[in-house]
Amino acid sequence: MLPASLCFLCTRVISRGFHVSCPTKKGIPDVVWKLGRLNHVAIACQDFEKPVALYKNVMGAKVSETVAQPEHGVYTVFVNLENTKLELLKPYGDKSPIKGFLDKNKAGGMHHICLEVNDIKAAMKTMKEHGIRCLADEPKTGAHGKPVVFLHPKDCAGVLIELEET
Amino acid sequence: MLPASLCFLCTRVISRGFHVSCPTKKGIPDVVWKLGRLNHVAIACQDFEKPVALYKNVMGAKVSETVAQPEHGVYTVFVNLENTKLELLKPYGDKSPIKGFLDKNKAGGMHHICLEVNDIKAAMKTMKEHGIRCLADEPKTGAHGKPVVFLHPKDCAGVLIELEET
Repeated sequence: MLPASLCFLCTRVISRGFHVSCPTKKGIPDVVWKLGRLNHVAIACQDFEKPVALYKNVMGAKVSETVAQPEHGVYTVFVNLENTKLELLKPYGDKSPIKGFLDKNKAGGMHHICLEVNDIKAAMKTMKEHGIRCLADEPKTGAHGKPVVFLHPKDCAGVLIELEET
Repeated sequence: MLPASLCFLCTRVISRGFHVSCPTKKGIPDVVWKLGRLNHVAIACQDFEKPVALYKNVMGAKVSETVAQPEHGVYTVFVNLENTKLELLKPYGDKSPIKGFLDKNKAGGMHHICLEVNDIKAAMKTMKEHGIRCLADEPKTGAHGKPVVFLHPKDCAGVLIELEET
């Protein structure tokens, strides 16, 4: 049993932190999961030749080999920056999930950002409670082999956000 | 004077590293500046209310106050992640540089990414040599008070890239 202490918000005696029904905690997010790093910014490309030349040969970044991800309908290349990554995406097959984006954005463009969370199911529960739509009812296995889910861009200032459990 | 050593590419005797005219260095970028961190991802918003609620109250991120940047035609709010920042932008005045973007993207969206460099003039010279267009001939002072320049999105896989000297 934890030693008794005072709720740091209302000073009532509790075990630790603040008590769930504390009347003063209004405005403090009821978060049982934690937001982490920006894992990557994904950039949809018609082709890798020019962007790889830009990041590798012109900017001098470390750039990975091209990897086919047939189960995700994309090829990926990672551009390693000091603190995060750019994920270059190119369509794989006719039913690639980025085909529609590239039809609208012929030159390519920023497709999504990926934010890390430590508990994706808890994060999804919080999203639903606040009316932020998840694009699937359950997490799927993403391109990095970890559970992921996408949030509806219309609920996120027009940004497609991928949550990844790390 | 540095001790003589061998060019690590062609083994000719030089002072250090590889010699500038080394015939074997083709493909190795002639970089005298260094690419650094992803400083931020900028997100253009019609309004801050919903995205601030999302990042602050739902996701539990540290979110800054709103700052007016009249000389840049935007209001800014920073969402602090563990390794980088999201920069939320909202138009300030009728001639805001993000107005055209928001007219095309009613829900908002990712506007640009900002990459740090240690020498912006050297970086601009390299860009020009490789046909990557800079949107100004000289760096300007950006929203963080540091020299910045934007690269043409058509030369960068559809992505508007801001280079910032740090």
